[in-house]
Amino acid sequence: GPLKEVLFFPSPQVCVEHLFTRHTHFPCACPLPHGVETSFSRLLRHLLSARLSLDLCVFSFSHMELSRAILLLHKRGVVVRVVTDRDYMTITGSQIGALRKAGICVRHEMSKAVHMHHKFALVDGRKLITGSLNWTLTAVQSNKENIMVTEEPELVRPYQQEFQKLWEANDPA
Amino acid sequence: GPLKEVLFFPSPQVCVEHLFTRHTHFPCACPLPHGVETSFSRLLRHLLSARLSLDLCVFSFSHMELSRAILLLHKRGVVVRVVTDRDYMTITGSQIGALRKAGICVRHEMSKAVHMHHKFALVDGRKLITGSLNWTLTAVQSNKENIMVTEEPELVRPYQQEFQKLWEANDPA
Ligand SMILES: [Zn+2]
Ligand SMILES: [Zn+2]
Repeated sequence: GPLKEVLFFPSPQVCVEHLFTRHTHFPCACPLPHGVETSFSRLLRHLLSARLSLDLCVFSFSHMELSRAILLLHKRGVVVRVVTDRDYMTITGSQIGALRKAGICVRHEMSKAVHMHHKFALVDGRKLITGSLNWTLTAVQSNKENIMVTEEPELVRPYQQEFQKLWEANDPA
Repeated sequence: GPLKEVLFFPSPQVCVEHLFTRHTHFPCACPLPHGVETSFSRLLRHLLSARLSLDLCVFSFSHMELSRAILLLHKRGVVVRVVTDRDYMTITGSQIGALRKAGICVRHEMSKAVHMHHKFALVDGRKLITGSLNWTLTAVQSNKENIMVTEEPELVRPYQQEFQKLWEANDPA
């Protein structure tokens, strides 16, 4: 059947440099463990597998390596769209400013009374990543969290429709 | 294939009285809309379908009608187990005290440094409800949230194992 993967957090801190630099000829010299697959490295792999598009709907986004992954996708020509919460967009450490500065389209929940509390992503419109995990260092390294990754069309389709709805509803133009 | 249902929130406020009182002979006199199915009524239906067990892992739990549903299941003889966050357990409006008072087993994350941020439930060990939704009125009625309900064994199994792990790790005895 279609891909169905469940990942739990916290995830131990390991080196993920090899996921960013595709052709590494020299061993990495950083002090972190190498060659270890974790929930976080799996998440990064799924995100970095995007070839055409990444649609991201996330309440809070301050994780530096996740930001690096999104910026890399954008640089590779992947069409990235981000919907985020209005209030959490401007907190200390938020990566939303960096994404915007790089030219990535970011929209936020327009209503002041409503929190955009989703935490899901759609890779190439056909792989869904969804769960409890916000894109913060605390969520990844400290909290008890879950995400699932699936290509099951019955599950992917409703999230695609929800993303499109939020994207259009929060058009600032 | 096995059940796969995706529900989005906020959910409009409608009467759900008929879900609690199985045999209603008289029409309900409350001012809310009747006979309307919503994301919240679907969620309630899935929870109230439990016949043997309900395992619940939720960060914050203050929603009165969800509390009423859990108490009703307990009264019907369904074995209810709850794992929750340490800090959010004692905030104003938390229903955790009411559950404990009724004799429901509640455990909380023991570590002070860690948030138990999951929001999932397992009905009779075979139906998984998981997503971004905390069990609060704001989440249900105001926020943009998602949950999925599935009986896909490949997805249910990992959450069952995670629940058991958390249940055992947070045994106060
Ligand atoms: Zn390294
Ligand atoms: Zn009524």
